[in-house]
Amino acid sequence: MKKIVCLSALVLSACFVYAQELASPNGNFKMNFSLDASGTALYSLNYKGKAVINPSKLGIDLKNDTNSLLQGFSIKSSDNKTFDETWQPVWGEWKNIRNNYNEWAVTLHQNKGDRDLIIRFRLFNDGLGFRYEFPAQKNLIHFVIKEERTQFAMTGDHTAYWISGDYDTQEYDYTTSKLSEIRGKFKEARSSNASQTSFSETAVQTSLMMKTADGIYINLHEAALIDYACMHLNLDDKNLIFESWLTPDAKGDKGSLQASCSSPWRTIIVSDDARAILASNMTLNLNEPSKIKDVSWIKPVKYMGVWWEMIAGKSTWAYTDGVPFGTEGTAAVKEVPSIKLGQTDFTKLKPNGKHGANNAHVKEIIDFAAKHGFGGVLVEGWNVGWEDWFGYHKDYVFDFVTPYPDFDVAGIREYAKSKGVKMIMHHETSGSVRNYERHLDTAFKFMKANNYDAVKTGYVGDIIPLGNYHYGQWMVNHYQYVIEKAATYKIMVNAHEAIRPTGIYRTWPNMIGNESARGTEFQAFGGSKPNHITLLPFTRLIGGPMDYTPGIFEMDVSKVNPGNKSHVNSTLANQLALYVTMYSPLQMAADLPENYNRFLDAFQFIKDVALDWDDSKYLEAEPGSYITVARKAKGTNNWFVGNVTGIPGGKVSEINFDFLDADKNYIATIYSDAKTAHYKTNPQAYEIKKVVVGKKSKLKQWAAEGGGYAISIMETDKAATKGLKKL
Amino acid sequence: MKKIVCLSALVLSACFVYAQELASPNGNFKMNFSLDASGTALYSLNYKGKAVINPSKLGIDLKNDTNSLLQGFSIKSSDNKTFDETWQPVWGEWKNIRNNYNEWAVTLHQNKGDRDLIIRFRLFNDGLGFRYEFPAQKNLIHFVIKEERTQFAMTGDHTAYWISGDYDTQEYDYTTSKLSEIRGKFKEARSSNASQTSFSETAVQTSLMMKTADGIYINLHEAALIDYACMHLNLDDKNLIFESWLTPDAKGDKGSLQASCSSPWRTIIVSDDARAILASNMTLNLNEPSKIKDVSWIKPVKYMGVWWEMIAGKSTWAYTDGVPFGTEGTAAVKEVPSIKLGQTDFTKLKPNGKHGANNAHVKEIIDFAAKHGFGGVLVEGWNVGWEDWFGYHKDYVFDFVTPYPDFDVAGIREYAKSKGVKMIMHHETSGSVRNYERHLDTAFKFMKANNYDAVKTGYVGDIIPLGNYHYGQWMVNHYQYVIEKAATYKIMVNAHEAIRPTGIYRTWPNMIGNESARGTEFQAFGGSKPNHITLLPFTRLIGGPMDYTPGIFEMDVSKVNPGNKSHVNSTLANQLALYVTMYSPLQMAADLPENYNRFLDAFQFIKDVALDWDDSKYLEAEPGSYITVARKAKGTNNWFVGNVTGIPGGKVSEINFDFLDADKNYIATIYSDAKTAHYKTNPQAYEIKKVVVGKKSKLKQWAAEGGGYAISIMETDKAATKGLKKL
Repeated sequence: MKKIVCLSALVLSACFVYAQELASPNGNFKMNFSLDASGTALYSLNYKGKAVINPSKLGIDLKNDTNSLLQGFSIKSSDNKTFDETWQPVWGEWKNIRNNYNEWAVTLHQNKGDRDLIIRFRLFNDGLGFRYEFPAQKNLIHFVIKEERTQFAMTGDHTAYWISGDYDTQEYDYTTSKLSEIRGKFKEARSSNASQTSFSETAVQTSLMMKTADGIYINLHEAALIDYACMHLNLDDKNLIFESWLTPDAKGDKGSLQASCSSPWRTIIVSDDARAILASNMTLNLNEPSKIKDVSWIKPVKYMGVWWEMIAGKSTWAYTDGVPFGTEGTAAVKEVPSIKLGQTDFTKLKPNGKHGANNAHVKEIIDFAAKHGFGGVLVEGWNVGWEDWFGYHKDYVFDFVTPYPDFDVAGIREYAKSKGVKMIMHHETSGSVRNYERHLDTAFKFMKANNYDAVKTGYVGDIIPLGNYHYGQWMVNHYQYVIEKAATYKIMVNAHEAIRPTGIYRTWPNMIGNESARGTEFQAFGGSKPNHITLLPFTRLIGGPMDYTPGIFEMDVSKVNPGNKSHVNSTLANQLALYVTMYSPLQMAADLPENYNRFLDAFQFIKDVALDWDDSKYLEAEPGSYITVARKAKGTNNWFVGNVTGIPGGKVSEINFDFLDADKNYIATIYSDAKTAHYKTNPQAYEIKKVVVGKKSKLKQWAAEGGGYAISIMETDKAATKGLKKL
Repeated sequence: MKKIVCLSALVLSACFVYAQELASPNGNFKMNFSLDASGTALYSLNYKGKAVINPSKLGIDLKNDTNSLLQGFSIKSSDNKTFDETWQPVWGEWKNIRNNYNEWAVTLHQNKGDRDLIIRFRLFNDGLGFRYEFPAQKNLIHFVIKEERTQFAMTGDHTAYWISGDYDTQEYDYTTSKLSEIRGKFKEARSSNASQTSFSETAVQTSLMMKTADGIYINLHEAALIDYACMHLNLDDKNLIFESWLTPDAKGDKGSLQASCSSPWRTIIVSDDARAILASNMTLNLNEPSKIKDVSWIKPVKYMGVWWEMIAGKSTWAYTDGVPFGTEGTAAVKEVPSIKLGQTDFTKLKPNGKHGANNAHVKEIIDFAAKHGFGGVLVEGWNVGWEDWFGYHKDYVFDFVTPYPDFDVAGIREYAKSKGVKMIMHHETSGSVRNYERHLDTAFKFMKANNYDAVKTGYVGDIIPLGNYHYGQWMVNHYQYVIEKAATYKIMVNAHEAIRPTGIYRTWPNMIGNESARGTEFQAFGGSKPNHITLLPFTRLIGGPMDYTPGIFEMDVSKVNPGNKSHVNSTLANQLALYVTMYSPLQMAADLPENYNRFLDAFQFIKDVALDWDDSKYLEAEPGSYITVARKAKGTNNWFVGNVTGIPGGKVSEINFDFLDADKNYIATIYSDAKTAHYKTNPQAYEIKKVVVGKKSKLKQWAAEGGGYAISIMETDKAATKGLKKL
């Protein structure tokens, strides 16, 4: 570390009053922290000798505080330490995760106002994390953030893979453009959503993936977002400087804090190898260890559900299309699509004949799931209220315990039990979060009484009370409340439309899933870009797994519902690969049994693929183009490989199998796009071949655009390999 | 009823297309309902042949609805009925309450949009109530109110007794002025409050009391405010027309509704005798009968508390003035006034030595309460969190179950039990209502486990999440939720800073108290006007009882806390009278035991006075000037009389005792202002005399400004009256 001090007041404006440097354990990164003449804090970051973050300002603008934590700082103290540990996640991509960084905590003092602010940097071998810490002190106790002013000054007009800044949704397709093109493409980048709020035409969401002209990959995100507003990045597109833009409350404030406390970590993952971005555990490492002591009840699960048929429009969540009204006690005279919990008697209503969550149908799904070894069955639309869910600002919209007349909770419970399948609960809130919290204990008790130990939550529509956003501090606090309360009931949570994850599952491993991005459902709402799934692991998955709900075999949605002309922009082989490329301890086989029955040979991969891993090897990767990964199934010597490709014309993937043990025998089953395959014109053209593979095997495998391949590699005895071709 | 139909299109603009009249059961009131040429609904009201409400428009402006429910109406049907019943409240001013009205429900049809709106009028012998009803229908299902457009067109520039319109507080002194003077006096009428939001310089709150130049009293309020925003009245001061102005949500909307539903009742109580306004039960009658079946656990209670000493500033709610901070595990190095629940260890903090809710002191209060026959003891500041309560937007501000180290919950429970006193719980929320709801079940269970069956709730400070107001629909819904949940635990609720009552205690008689106005606490915050208590029964109490916390004997607050120079603008006799004039089933003796010990002869009245009544007779009344009322104690032949006076120079009250039974013997104890008494200069000058009274007795009794008198009239046997003077 070196110290630069200006010797002459004359040159103060051109240099720093204070500057020091910190290196990563492997020396690849060097970061610089400095104070300029105004006492403003700045940092910069170099990777292998090249600047990746130009000098960027740090600070917090406080409300009703003329001083604010922006300038006038001097160095009070500076602490360094090196940290190196290896820890075991409850579930994950690796059995062991190394957490190794050099830490630097700079305590800044602001003379005016007599206040301290700590900026803590952790420089890993894969990037930089830093956060603001507000120590307990007399002159900074309770405070309101007007805006966080953290800059990320880019070194050039990088290529960015971005979705537009929004306080309420992340369910957008990614746009690939130069930073300078964001403003021009902003409107086109936005599609409609049940709740959405934009605020700046150069704002994007994190995790933001970028690539520089000289091939360096940069990822910006945050870690450990707890009781703080979600950060967006707003671009000054003249100077190519991103600045943090927090999600406001209804008054426009960005959060109420009480010292001692800290901001989430701001993360910058950098590599000249795209695979290293995917393999980074920095986000996880910046979170606290598990706060759940007994984790024996937390179990990855592969599940089916009564879901895709509703998404496609074949069946409905609601039991009826309307309810009778007229003079009380008389026969129904008309129907209106409005119901009231506790007042509407659903047994007296005319069913619409399309209600998905009916006993007979649910049992069919349970039968199919049990037959094929699935652990769970999710049923949406089982509980009363769906006739008028989101969009009406209805406070008391669901009670989370009352089933429709055709869903027998106890009967289904016993049936599932007899088949060895766990039911997965569904709690849609319609954004009415106070109502959800009011019912939470009762709903969780109801779950436990009926043998459910996992819940999918949903937050479709505007947050009630209006004026609050999905990503504001008040809601971040809510999602966390649900996770922590669920843990007390030993319930696993899979939150949809909630805040995007920031590695919190290290601390709360019962948070086994999240949506918080454009999932498979959009394939039935007009389709997603064929390269979408080559971007999600570089962006949304940086913070944690996604309940992407893959496994669609019938790409023509009109085959499910003739009224729906949407197309699933993916080949069948691509759908299989997603179980490997989109890491998640929760994996759905989202399509209908009838579609799986048509392709049982391909379905075998979904049945075989593991959910939890001892090791992961990212073999090929380029954002927007392709990802190939091999994973070693937990406690076995079996491996699974997935490749997804998003390039027009497809691409030949070239991998070798040196991750295998030299002294073991393996049979690989390769599920790949047929030569004629194309996501749009011929998505169901796939090939399956069974071969013997070993440590020295190599594979050249073409994958279509929107296509890919999946391989199961099972350890076997020598005898079983007889008669099989060697790769 | 008569029907007027215009015969010529030429005169349409000058007359009504439809007009009908309805009379009250006694014929004193006549109301007219009409549709004008634009199909706008109007009503007017006559009292004894005089107009009291000029033709006033009715309607609801809907959001995102070009049509709205404002005009284009025709008459679809019209239903009349007469209703007459007598019912018994669980507690109240009367044993029996007559509910007698002529009802008229007009179903209006709006051709454009094909929608129906019902306006239901109930014309009582004491005034008019009406509401909007939105029947279930195809074209009006879920809707958002932009504004309710209910007019109250005044017939002249009346004298009004008003407080300024505010979304967050009613804790203002009343201003008496002409309607036309409201704008000019608006700023001066406002004093500071922990949360306040004004919106129009001619807006006032209900219940609004007025008096016309020819001596007619008019009171405007609402009844049965459930799941709807609180109504303010905004004055068009050129035309002297009030229009409803609902409390908005954070987006400015006025409420989200779902048909079938209805607005609260809008009430107009009218009389040429001010006493009839006080005696009106119209507001109660417009509420639904009790929804609590077993009401045996609901009991009026007279209580003392650890409260006034904190209000005066002698002791504190908080246990400490600050908490240590520094390196964890080391000795405290400094103190900052900030704590965190679940983190701060209060046993390690230095007590400030002024914490009111300490065991020894609480036991003193219990001893005194038990000795003098009080049923309850309220203790504020018993639970951790007060070091930084309202004002910081702190979400997790209280947990409602964790006591400070010097308050032994179990010990106090057993001690109170041994003394035959019930502890009253205190739940201050600091406006953090989600936090309160999160803890509500646990807090209520904790209460029951510790023998508490009544809770005083508080909502000091801005509502969290910010942007919501104390009186918006979301909060109205919250207060109601607490009342209903409390009922399931058999807990009585006394809500402070909550929505002002609208007679809901008929339906939920466990709501035994409310503040929602400027209470006695303001006597320690600079004082209230000496005639304040002659106005509250005409305004705030129209909707239900107030926990006014009377009984202050030491008017010089500096005697309690030398640092507080406030003065209680009331004589001691006036304080006694409040137990009768301010009807409430919950009455506090708010002063300190040491002050009662100095005036035990006067204190006897507080000990004697009843809480529940078989009959009430308003003997004298003029808003802002004086009120005299006699009440017959429940199940006895004892009566209690109270007089409060607010006129400079005082006033001679003249009453007779013809409410007494001719064949019974009574001894009256009269507690009155001494001749030299004055609220400011000589407040503790009182006289007590014991006399025999009978049905023919008359009393001429002078009362000072800010003064009054109280009389207990006990039935006795003839022998006991011997030697006593006859009145």
